[in-house]
Order: sequence, then structure tokens, then C-alpha cells
Amino acid sequence: MSESSSSVSSKSGLPPGTLVHVGEVLEGETRITVVDYARDGIREHGAASVDEIIRYRDTDSVTWVNVEGLVNVKMIETIGEQFDIHPLVLEDILNTHQRPKFEEYDNYLFLVFKVMYPARDGVSVYYEQVSILILDDYVFTFKEKQDDIFEPIKVRLRNSKGRFRTMGADYLAYAILDTVVDLYLSLQDYLDKIIESVEDDLLASPDTGTLATIQRIRRELIFIRRSSAPLRELLNGVLRCDSPLISDGTLIYFRDVHDHVLRVTDAFETYRDMTTSLMDIYNSTISNRMNEVMKVLTVFASIFIPLTFLTGIYGMNFEYMPELGWKWSYPVMWAVFVLISWVLLVYFKRKKWL
Amino acid sequence: MSESSSSVSSKSGLPPGTLVHVGEVLEGETRITVVDYARDGIREHGAASVDEIIRYRDTDSVTWVNVEGLVNVKMIETIGEQFDIHPLVLEDILNTHQRPKFEEYDNYLFLVFKVMYPARDGVSVYYEQVSILILDDYVFTFKEKQDDIFEPIKVRLRNSKGRFRTMGADYLAYAILDTVVDLYLSLQDYLDKIIESVEDDLLASPDTGTLATIQRIRRELIFIRRSSAPLRELLNGVLRCDSPLISDGTLIYFRDVHDHVLRVTDAFETYRDMTTSLMDIYNSTISNRMNEVMKVLTVFASIFIPLTFLTGIYGMNFEYMPELGWKWSYPVMWAVFVLISWVLLVYFKRKKWL
Amino acid sequence: MSESSSSVSSKSGLPPGTLVHVGEVLEGETRITVVDYARDGIREHGAASVDEIIRYRDTDSVTWVNVEGLVNVKMIETIGEQFDIHPLVLEDILNTHQRPKFEEYDNYLFLVFKVMYPARDGVSVYYEQVSILILDDYVFTFKEKQDDIFEPIKVRLRNSKGRFRTMGADYLAYAILDTVVDLYLSLQDYLDKIIESVEDDLLASPDTGTLATIQRIRRELIFIRRSSAPLRELLNGVLRCDSPLISDGTLIYFRDVHDHVLRVTDAFETYRDMTTSLMDIYNSTISNRMNEVMKVLTVFASIFIPLTFLTGIYGMNFEYMPELGWKWSYPVMWAVFVLISWVLLVYFKRKKWL
Amino acid sequence: MSESSSSVSSKSGLPPGTLVHVGEVLEGETRITVVDYARDGIREHGAASVDEIIRYRDTDSVTWVNVEGLVNVKMIETIGEQFDIHPLVLEDILNTHQRPKFEEYDNYLFLVFKVMYPARDGVSVYYEQVSILILDDYVFTFKEKQDDIFEPIKVRLRNSKGRFRTMGADYLAYAILDTVVDLYLSLQDYLDKIIESVEDDLLASPDTGTLATIQRIRRELIFIRRSSAPLRELLNGVLRCDSPLISDGTLIYFRDVHDHVLRVTDAFETYRDMTTSLMDIYNSTISNRMNEVMKVLTVFASIFIPLTFLTGIYGMNFEYMPELGWKWSYPVMWAVFVLISWVLLVYFKRKKWL
Amino acid sequence: MSESSSSVSSKSGLPPGTLVHVGEVLEGETRITVVDYARDGIREHGAASVDEIIRYRDTDSVTWVNVEGLVNVKMIETIGEQFDIHPLVLEDILNTHQRPKFEEYDNYLFLVFKVMYPARDGVSVYYEQVSILILDDYVFTFKEKQDDIFEPIKVRLRNSKGRFRTMGADYLAYAILDTVVDLYLSLQDYLDKIIESVEDDLLASPDTGTLATIQRIRRELIFIRRSSAPLRELLNGVLRCDSPLISDGTLIYFRDVHDHVLRVTDAFETYRDMTTSLMDIYNSTISNRMNEVMKVLTVFASIFIPLTFLTGIYGMNFEYMPELGWKWSYPVMWAVFVLISWVLLVYFKRKKWL
Repeated sequence: MSESSSSVSSKSGLPPGTLVHVGEVLEGETRITVVDYARDGIREHGAASVDEIIRYRDTDSVTWVNVEGLVNVKMIETIGEQFDIHPLVLEDILNTHQRPKFEEYDNYLFLVFKVMYPARDGVSVYYEQVSILILDDYVFTFKEKQDDIFEPIKVRLRNSKGRFRTMGADYLAYAILDTVVDLYLSLQDYLDKIIESVEDDLLASPDTGTLATIQRIRRELIFIRRSSAPLRELLNGVLRCDSPLISDGTLIYFRDVHDHVLRVTDAFETYRDMTTSLMDIYNSTISNRMNEVMKVLTVFASIFIPLTFLTGIYGMNFEYMPELGWKWSYPVMWAVFVLISWVLLVYFKRKKWL
Repeated sequence: MSESSSSVSSKSGLPPGTLVHVGEVLEGETRITVVDYARDGIREHGAASVDEIIRYRDTDSVTWVNVEGLVNVKMIETIGEQFDIHPLVLEDILNTHQRPKFEEYDNYLFLVFKVMYPARDGVSVYYEQVSILILDDYVFTFKEKQDDIFEPIKVRLRNSKGRFRTMGADYLAYAILDTVVDLYLSLQDYLDKIIESVEDDLLASPDTGTLATIQRIRRELIFIRRSSAPLRELLNGVLRCDSPLISDGTLIYFRDVHDHVLRVTDAFETYRDMTTSLMDIYNSTISNRMNEVMKVLTVFASIFIPLTFLTGIYGMNFEYMPELGWKWSYPVMWAVFVLISWVLLVYFKRKKWL
Repeated sequence: MSESSSSVSSKSGLPPGTLVHVGEVLEGETRITVVDYARDGIREHGAASVDEIIRYRDTDSVTWVNVEGLVNVKMIETIGEQFDIHPLVLEDILNTHQRPKFEEYDNYLFLVFKVMYPARDGVSVYYEQVSILILDDYVFTFKEKQDDIFEPIKVRLRNSKGRFRTMGADYLAYAILDTVVDLYLSLQDYLDKIIESVEDDLLASPDTGTLATIQRIRRELIFIRRSSAPLRELLNGVLRCDSPLISDGTLIYFRDVHDHVLRVTDAFETYRDMTTSLMDIYNSTISNRMNEVMKVLTVFASIFIPLTFLTGIYGMNFEYMPELGWKWSYPVMWAVFVLISWVLLVYFKRKKWL
Repeated sequence: MSESSSSVSSKSGLPPGTLVHVGEVLEGETRITVVDYARDGIREHGAASVDEIIRYRDTDSVTWVNVEGLVNVKMIETIGEQFDIHPLVLEDILNTHQRPKFEEYDNYLFLVFKVMYPARDGVSVYYEQVSILILDDYVFTFKEKQDDIFEPIKVRLRNSKGRFRTMGADYLAYAILDTVVDLYLSLQDYLDKIIESVEDDLLASPDTGTLATIQRIRRELIFIRRSSAPLRELLNGVLRCDSPLISDGTLIYFRDVHDHVLRVTDAFETYRDMTTSLMDIYNSTISNRMNEVMKVLTVFASIFIPLTFLTGIYGMNFEYMPELGWKWSYPVMWAVFVLISWVLLVYFKRKKWL
Repeated sequence: MSESSSSVSSKSGLPPGTLVHVGEVLEGETRITVVDYARDGIREHGAASVDEIIRYRDTDSVTWVNVEGLVNVKMIETIGEQFDIHPLVLEDILNTHQRPKFEEYDNYLFLVFKVMYPARDGVSVYYEQVSILILDDYVFTFKEKQDDIFEPIKVRLRNSKGRFRTMGADYLAYAILDTVVDLYLSLQDYLDKIIESVEDDLLASPDTGTLATIQRIRRELIFIRRSSAPLRELLNGVLRCDSPLISDGTLIYFRDVHDHVLRVTDAFETYRDMTTSLMDIYNSTISNRMNEVMKVLTVFASIFIPLTFLTGIYGMNFEYMPELGWKWSYPVMWAVFVLISWVLLVYFKRKKWL
């Protein structure tokens, strides 16, 4: 499912700050879940109103608000007002055609990027935009639809493995980013597998289906590169920013994510070379096959056309053709046929056409 | 309609500062409309002379002067004199082959760029050069022709939606730029649709029309990229300039436009890859078809040429051909014909040529 | 006429500072014209000796010395000595294979670049190297041959249009550069026209002449890009230099030329994409034609070869062929011929080969 | 054996700092060897527990701990704890899909990169990840498997050739890097040889095997470039870092390695051009061959098809065909056959098809 | 003779600072010539031992030591010791696979680069590595073999043309670099000529030899670019270095060389485009030829196959074929043959196949 299939300009002409969900609606309703945790405990529940989110404001715990589905614009607007988020940021959250970026504000950090992972059916790639707001003790995540990509983080929070629950909101943001980049790595595995299978096909028996598959990979790669490349910039921004919202101790973790992003985007870049190379093989294979076909035609035609000419000669009805009356004419003709065929076959053999 | 169709050098040899309209004349007359607004009111009217523009000079209101059509050089020159605009700037406004750029002067800012949007007929792209002068309380826009691309802004001003009428001239400039970039997004949608339809054509039945369409897209893309790429630089210039004409509060809006421009130019860049890829498929498809044609020829020729040779043999008029007198010769020949055909058909089937 | 046709290394092995004219001799003699002007008057005359140039040294007027043809090395050496020009600069002036560049010296500025414009015959491009020395009240221009490309500047000086005669030597240098860049623009027009005509040819009936034309354009473009691209750098150098020889008031004019250069080099860059694209169409068209040829062959051969086989059968001379004696055999055969042809025609129609 | 063949994402979803070996297991056990040396002596032994490593802590000697095989995670974790290594660094050591990088910590430097060298069988390339930890008097190397690539270093240490044993841990790290880059050079030799042999094949008799070889080289090159390019950055990092762990005297050696890396990566870059060029020749050769085949077919068919038509004419059974009764008809026909063949052969000769 | 033909890794595994000549041995012995000059005199002689070099140490004259052939490692080592050259520098001098580079040391400057010039036979390119050591009053040049490329410098020194003998060691180094870059220019001329001749071949009658030539040019260009591109960097290094070993007066000469290098590397870059373009023409020409062949085949086959079918009909032996007895059948058949041929010829003419 290509990202470009829905219109990118449907909000054109509206004033800035008008909150409208722009993009394909992937989810019919907006579901909000709240995870509030501290060293000594964790609370998880859904939230139907903003009040259920605000009440953790004066606690020391870290509160993670996960908003899935973007149709409930009113709710998101209220969150924006309550937490003093700039209208343009809210607009960016609702418009799911954002270029990945990082923005630093006085009281919060804003990250928006794409989640990409291979679909379970193994033939398509899922794209989803995720926005993160990092506040002092709050982390908001806005997703286009309900799914379980953040489940591992919740499990870790519940089990309190590692020092997770003792870390701040910045570490939670890191954990989310890390999870997203891990999905990129699974996408890389998926692409490796597809490209390898196409290569096998090309060596065995390429057909127009192979061509279609190569073309599909190329299209996906264009979107994947477009979605992943700005992530380097985004993480550079995070690493360079000196906001108090990201502690020095957490920076090293972001640097680790940055390394992973470099690795995966390097890999995505090389896939472009690989698909070009696949296309080259496809074309060479087609040419090779054409050559095969032509050789068969040429061998058949070049052998039998001269022979047929010979039979034509003795099929002529001239009265004075001495050979016609000779006794050994017919067997000699057969000998001539065999001889010519044999000479030509040897000739074609030498040319390696057989 | 390609931008390059009119001569770019028609002003060659004239001294700098000589005001002449250079470029295809898209509009036969120059129409000036004035929109003067403040928090508590808005006035719209046409302007036949410069006096009707100057009279708002001493008010606090923001005055937007929209000049459509560039043939009335005298009028534009008078505006330039009245508002102390450098002659080279006026020259740039009148020459519609400008590279998008941003220039900072003491008392005004100058922006020039291209508006691009798909024509209503769905087969061509409209190009128009728009120049903006941002003065203290004035915004001048110079367009090549009369159209309604700025209508949404006027509607918003009239309805006073948002804080629009309370903002200064810089916000108006932002609103204009934002509208222009929204048109770019609609162009992106249009290109997405065309490329998708070409892809469908390629899989179904590509013909020389498809080739012509791909070529048309490539040409348009060259101009679109050339017109849009410098816009990044332009907006970088706006964001970096510290002119008092752009307030800090408005800068964040320009940053938002900058993000949109990055997104849309990223997309335009990827279209180049896509069209290359379309061309590749076109060529592969042509090769595949050639293969198909060759296979049919080869199968027909390889089966019937040997058979015809056989009939030729027994069409010879030798006196001593014992087979001719045998009773079962004819049916046996038919059996041989069928056998040879069958063997060859199996052979071609194995080669997957059938 | 390609720039590369004359040897670039003919001075190899001579010591630096040895003044020798390196490059194709485009002009057999050296003609020097002097234009001396001030607000209140202008004097134009030829100069046979350096004395006629030096005598304006102590006046306030601006003196433009235009040297056309580089064979009189002695004369140029004398000018160099009189005006204290570095020997390496004189060497660069005489070697017409320079890369465009800007050099700042204490008492003068040195610019060297290529003039390029389409020849009047409309099939070739003229290249000429022009060097400019900007001194306090002098401007020297060194050209490879006599032509009238600077005539418009002289006309403007004579008519004292604009503020020209009140400006200094730097403005004259600007006017010369501007004139040169205008020639680039006319070259751009010329290329636009040629490429458009090739495109039309390609859609109508491409032949090997079209291929040769595309190749010629590609070669020219390589030289055009190589000659024009460093001009951006050159003008950047001029804009950044803080020599007192260029006044602040003139800088804005150089910035204008810089914008034009950016525009024209942008255009030259895109022509590379265009010619690649032309080549692609050419190749696809050739493939399409091959397909056409193959289809005609296949249709003819596939219809008549089976029919000929049938006639061959009843051309056999077996004694026992019951059909030969039947009354309706012959008309039935015709019916069979028509039927087979019709079936195959429908088949080829379905395959869209007809 | 392509690096990409094992899954890169198998650790996805685990918390950071969880030590798991990610990557194909190249070695079933973890072998640790310790080389402790000083000017006056050297001791080498295996190490089964961390204690055998720690005991050199208070000596002045340099201790090189070489860990081969990464399955014993517990051991590596213990080393990490004992020497105060950050968990993320240990994680990077254990994940063998790292992008080459250099990281500077307070008490140690961390380098990770790929070792690449041609396999002894001459048809594949071995990849192995090597991590280096440089501490004050310790150097840890972590390798994926047991092999003898570091043997030359050990030999030099034993023989105390050069000043080796008098230098610090930084010099040992340099020696290791230098050895690795030497392996890159042998890889370059190997690629040179393969590409040369493919070129010879292409000129002699290219077949689909040649195509497969080119494709294999291209794939390997993608991985080789991806693994080697970041090494430039890595060494730049080392050269710029001002850690006391690298003495000024050793820096010049690292600069030397940097030069070698530049050279070898330059070479790897040019191989891309070379393989493209190989592919081009392959395709042109295929086209040339097709041309050969077509010419043979055309010559045969064009000569014999008209002749066969002529025999067909006199094979017709019309009653009134005067030629049939003429005495010289048959010899004249033969003359006609020879004449037509001769004319056509001359024609094809002129066209250079024979 | 491609640079890559000898092994680049033959020194792998040796400790740094071990002096071994790495690279193809181009000269069997090491010849040392000394040129010692000052304003008032010049002395030239060979040198068999280092003593003959050292004795000029305390004079004010400039001493140029030219070492040709690198097999006498001992001698070079002694020079290194006497003049306090770092072992790694000596190693670089002896390894003839260096990437061009410039290194600044306290008491000397080190430059290493490639000399490239067309061989006298006009079909190959000579590569040679030259290293320069610039000391206070000494210049050492190390060359791979004996040749006369530095002869012009010696001639100039002898004739004391220009100010040569009054300048220091830095000016001598400049003169050497300038001579080398002049050789690059002659290489450029040579490439221009070859490419032009290939272009002519392509328009006249390309064959597989042309393909081989294009491929040879491409390979050479890869090595030429790899050897020349780093020279820009090298000269940038020289221009930026503030070593007292290069006087301000000489810097302007190095800037001149830098300009030449920029020009020549620009040219080398464009040759890549040119060879791609040659390859394109080659392929298009092959396709065009194939088209020609196919047209001839199709015209012959399409005309004669239907006619042969007609003769086949009246060659059938049916008893009841009324036409066989008609008097005018035979002449009518000839009319039909001519008519069909004529119609098809007109048809093919219209299609421009004839």
C-alpha cells in the first residue's frame, strides 16, 4: 500500500491552524490509552476525556498518552490547549503526510516520523505516521491506527526490566524510537528476502511477473527512502539540541538509535543499486532469450530453405531435364540433402548456435 | 505549456534598469486590486492610478496591492518610484524568467517564485511568476495574469477567520506563500495520478502514446524541479533574515511553509526516479513483445518449413521414385507430418515458447 | 566549432612567465580600440602604440581599452609592464584555454571567462575567451578576435543613456559581464529551439541524422557546461571580494548578473537530462520500429507458410491420393486457404499486430 | 557469503542493554587468548576465566585480549563489568551487524569495523566483524570466529622486530587496524583479478555464466563499499579525537592507515564504474551476436526464397506454358539461379553482411 | 598499461617502517643525479654515494637530487637518515601505489603524485609515481624509472632563463609540478584525439574493435581520474600550508598550477560523459543495423512467400482445376506476380523500408 495513494493536498486553501485530519483515514475512531509509571508502580487505563490525562500533572510519575486514530480532532485540540501546544504542531500531527522532522519548543519537543513494517501477508508494506510530544513528565504519541507495535514497550514497563521505570520521559521517547527503528530493521530483512527471491527467479525463469515485482520493489523503495532518510536529520537534531527535556544520560541512547538509523538508511540506499542491477539482468536475460529464439529459427530456416529449393528444381515440368530420367537421381538427391544438412549443422555447431 | 517556449533573451542588449516586460505576455492588460484591512474592517477596490494605492500610506491598516498582468510598465515604474523600490527589482518583476529568490533591502523584502498548478483540462501545467514586495504596511503581489488563485486568502480576510486581520503584512505574505505551496501539493497529486495511470497503461498495453506521455512528464518534471528547488533556498533566506519586517511570531509560520516545501521538493525529486523506472518498464515491455512476435514466427516457420520440404521431395518428377507407386505412401506421409509437428510442438512447449 | 579542437598543451615545457599565445589563432592581427569617457564627453580611437593608452592615466575619465586578437604578444607585454600586471596574469590572458576565474590583486582585478553564442548559420556555437582587467580608472578587455559583441555597450556610452557615463570602471566591467551573460541567454534560446526540433523529429521520423544531431548537442553541452559552470564561482568571488576597486553601489549590479548566471547554468544543467531523455526516446523508437518490421514479417510468413505446405501436399506425385480425383477438391482447397488465412488474421488482430 | 544473509532484526523488541548475540553464529565457542608484553618479555596463554585477564591490571605491560567467537555472552558481560564498559558498547560488540564506527569514552576508545578478505577457494569473500576496545594498558579485540588474521602481529611481537614492544596499547591498536586494511588491499587485488578475467571472457565468448559472475561482483561490491566507506569516517574520528589514550607519536601511524583506507575506498568506488562498464559490454556483445544471427538468416532466406519461387513457377501444371517445351529452358534456369545468387551475394558483401 | 596490473598488497603483513619497494619494478637500478645551482653557477653530476649529496649542505646553493629507480632501498634509507625523514615517508616513497597527497613536516614538505603521459606509440598511457621532498635548500625527487620528463627544467636551469636560478627550493618544486601538469595537458590532447577518432569510426562503420577501444578508454579514464583528482586536494594543501619552506612570492606560482589542475581535472571528468555518450551511439548504431537487416529480410520474404504460395496452387495435381486448361492462365499469372510485387514494393516504400 503506497503512501502516495491518498491525496496530499486535500487541506489546500484552509487557513493555517485549522485543525482537520488530512490523509487517508486508517482508523474510524480515536482510542486513548494512558500508562502512568514510576519506580514503584504502574497504572494503565483508557481515557475517554482529557481530564483523565491531566490528573497526573502534579505527580512525579511519567505519563505516556498513546492516541490511536486521528478522527477525533476535538479531543486532540483540547489536549493541545491543556498542554499549551502550538496550533501548527497540532496541525502537523493531524496531517499524515509530514516529512519526518524534529522541532524544539520551550516546554516540549516534537518529533514526527513514519513507522514502516512489512505486512503479515508478506507482500506489502505498512506505513503509519507517528508523532511524539515530549513534555516534562508526559510523553504523547499520536498514531494513525490501532495496532500493537508499542506492545513490547508496555511489557517492559510492566515487568520493570532494566532501569526503565526509574528513567524519565526522555528515556520513554528513546524506547519508542528504538522500537520504530527495530521495525525498520525487520523491513530491511523483508526486502533482503524479496530481492533474493527475485534474483533466484531471474536466474531460473524470469517472466513479466518478475518485471512487475521489480517495479513494485522500486516504487516501495522510493517511498521507504523518502520516509527514512530525513530520520538521520531528525536524530541529529535531537543529539544537538540542548533542551533540558533530554538528560545527558539519555543522549547516549539516542546516539545508539542514530547509529542504527545510519545503518538502515545505508542499506536502503544500496537497495537502489541492487534493483537497478536486477533490472539490468532482466533485460540481459530477455536479450539472451531472443538470441535463443533467433538461433532456432535461423538453424531451421537455413537448413530447410536450400533443400526445398532443390526439390523445387526437380519439381519443374520442363520436358528436357535429363536428370529426371536417370536411375540413380533420386537416391543421389537424398545423399545431397543429407550432405547439405550435415555441412550446415557442423557450421552452426562451430558458431555455437546449437 | 512549457515555460521554455518563449525566448529568454529578448531583453539582451538593453541597459540594466530599463524596464521592459520580458516573457510571453499572458495577459493583455494590467489590473490592480487593493485590499486594505485592519482588525475592524476591510476595503476592497480596483485601482486605476497609483494615487489610489498611496492613500493608505499613513493608516495603520495593512494594504495588499495585487497587480495582475505586467504590460503596463509605466504603472509599475510609478509604484517603484513612489515606494522607493530599486530599479533592478522592478526589472526582475517584469522579467518573467526569474529564478526564484529572496532579497533583503533596507525598507522592503523581495520574493519572486513560480506558481505551478495543473490546468483544469488535466493534461497540462500552468506556470506563472509571482513577485512579492513586503513593506512595512504594504504587500505588493505582481502576477502575470488574472486568475483566482489568491481568492481563498481574500475570503479568509473578509470572514476574518482566525487572527488573520490582526496580523501584519508579514503574515499576509506568509498566507500567500502558503497558498502557493498548497498549489504545489495539488500538482503533486496530479503527477501521482498521471504516473499511476501510465503505470497501469504499461502493464496493460503500452503504445507509442504511452512513450509520448512519459516523455511529456519528464519534460514537465525538469521545469517543475527547476522552478521549485530554489524555493528551499528562498525560504531558508527568509528564515535566516533578521529584518524587522518579519516578526518573530510569524517566523514559525514561514518555518511551516519551509517544511511543506521540503516535502514537496523531495517528492518532485523522487518523480525523476519514477519516470526513469517507467521508461525502463516500457523498454522491457517492448523487448518482451518482440520476443513474443519472434516466438510465433519461429514456431510457425520451424514446423512448416521442414514439412514443406517433405512435400517438395515427393513433388519431384524423377522417373525412378519407388515410393510414388506404393499404396500407403500418402497416408504414411500424413502420419509423418503429424508426428513431426507433434515432436516440434512438444519441443517448443518445453522451451516455454507456447 | 568545439573548443577542444586545438591543442591545449602546446606551451608545455616553457618556463612560467614566458609570454606566448597558446590556442587556436582566431585573428591574424591585434587591434586595439580606446574608449575614454566621462560625464561630459566621450572619445573613441584606435591605438597603435601603448602611448596612446597611457596618456589618459592622469585624467579622471574612465578609459576602456579593448584588445582584439592576441598575436601581438609584444604589445600586450608592454601594457603589462606599464600597468604593473603580474606576468602570470599576462600568461593567462594569452592562453585561451583558461578555466573561468577571478583573481584579486592589490591594484587590479582579473577576470577571465568564455563568451559563447550561436553562430549566425544556426548550426554551431562560437567560443571566445575574454579577459578583463579592472584598474582604478582603466578597464582592459582582451578578446581572441574582432567582432561586435561589445557594440551595444559602446552605443549606450555614446548616447549616455542611463547613468552610465557617471559611473566608474567597475560599472563598465559589470556592463561587459552583463552583455556576455545575455549572450548566454541567447545560447539558451538556441538550444531550446534545437532540442524542440529534435523532439519533433523523434516523434515524426527519426533517422541516423537525428542521432548525429543529439550527439552533437551532447558534445556542445559538455563544453558549454564546462565553460559556464565556473562563472558562478567567479561571480561569487567578485561579490565576496572587498577590493576598493568595486564600489558598494555597483555590487548590487554584480549580484544581478550572478542571478542571471545561476539561472542560465541551471538551464544548462537540465539540458543534460533532456538529451538523455532524447536518446532514450530515440532508442525506444528504434525498438518500436523493429517490432513493426518483425510483425509484418511474422504475419506474412505465418499465413503463407502453412498454405504453401498445403499446396505442397497436393503437388506430390503419389499414385494413390484419392483427393486428387475428387471433383470438389480444388474449390474445397480454396475454401480451406481462405479459412486458415481468416483464422490467422483474426488471431493476429487479437494480438494487436495488425 | 553475503553479509545480508542472516537476519538483521532478530533482536528487535528487546530492551537496550540486553546482551544477546545478534547475527549468524560463525563460531560455536568463545576462545580467549591473552598476549601480555613489555620491552623485556612476552607471555601468551589462553584464558578460561576473567581472572586470568584481570591479573595484568597493575603491571606496566600491555595486555592484548583477543576474544574469538561471541556465543559466550556471560563472559563478555563479565569483562564489561570488570573494565567498566558501557552496556550499549557490549551490545554493539555482540551485534555483528554494526556500521563501522568510532566512539570515545572517558576511560576507553571503541572501534568496530568489518574485516573482509577473499576466501582461499577464490570465489567468495569472508566478512567478519571486529571490535576493538583501547584501554590504558589493555587492548580487547572481539572477533566473530577463530582464524589467523592477527597471526602476523603476534609474530612481530614475539620477534620484537621494530619498536613494537616498547610502544603502548595505542600502537597495538594501530597494528591491528593496519593488518585489517592490508586485508582490504588483498581484497582489492582479488577484485582486480576477477574483473580482469571477466573482461577477457567478454572479449572471447560471454555466456550467461559471465552475466552471473558480473552480477555476483556487483552484489559483493555493494556490501564491500557499505562496509569500507564508513572506515574513512572512523579514522577521521580517531585522528581528531584528543583522548590521552592515543599518544601524539602514534597519531602519525593512524594517519598512514587513513591514507591507505582512502586509497582502497577510492578503488572500491571505481569498481562500480567498472562493473557498469562490463555490463555495457556484455549487452553490446549480445546485440552484436544477434546481428550476426540475423545476417545469416537473412542471407540464406533472401537468396533461396526467390529461387524457390522460380522453381515453383515451372512446377505449375498449366497446359499452355511455352517455356516448358523449349530445349534450353532447363540450362537457362540454372544460369538464372546462379546469376541471381551471385548478384545477391555481391549485394550482401557490399553491405558487409558476409 | 594499467596501473592496477601489479599487486597492491604485496607488502601486507610487514611491520610499518620496514622499507621494501612495493610495486612493479620499472627500473632495474637506482640512478641518482645531482644538480646544484645558485645565481652564478650550476653543477651537474651523478651520485654513487650519499656523501656526494650531503656535501652541499652548508652552501647557499639549491641542490636538486633526482633519484630514478627505487630498487636500491639501502641508499634511500641512508638519505632518509641523513636528512631526518620519517620512516613512514620513506615507506610511502618506496610504495608506488600511493594516493597523491601532501604532508607537512617540521623540516620538510612531502608531495607524492602520479606522472601520466601518452606513450610515443600513441596507444597506451605511462604512469609513474613521483615523490618530492622539499627541504630548506634541497629538493629530492624520487621517480620509478629513468626518463627525460625533467629535462626541460634542467635546460632552463642551465640557460638561466628567467629568474630561475635566483629562486629557492620552493620554486624548483613548483617548476617540477608545473612540468608534470603540462604532461597531464598533453594527455588531455591525446584523449581528445582518440575520442574524436572513435566518434568518426562510429559514424562511419563501428565494429567490435570500436567497442574494445571505447572500453579501453573507459578503463584508462578510471585510473586517470583516480590519479589526478586528489591532486586538487594536494595543491589546496600546499596553498593553505604556512610552512616557511614555501615563500609568499612562490605561492602565486602554485596557485597557477592549481588553476591548471582544476582545468585538466574538469576535462577528465567530462570525458566520462563523453565515453558514456560514445557507448550510447555504438548501441544505437547496432540497433539501427539490426533494423536494416530485418527490413531486407522482411521485404524479400514478404514479397516471395505469397508468390510461391500461388505457384504452389497451380502445382497441385487435382484433376479438376479448370484454370490449368485455359490458354491465358500462364501470362495472367505473370501479371498477377508482377502486380502483387509492385503493390508490396509500394507498401514497403511508403513505410520507408526501402
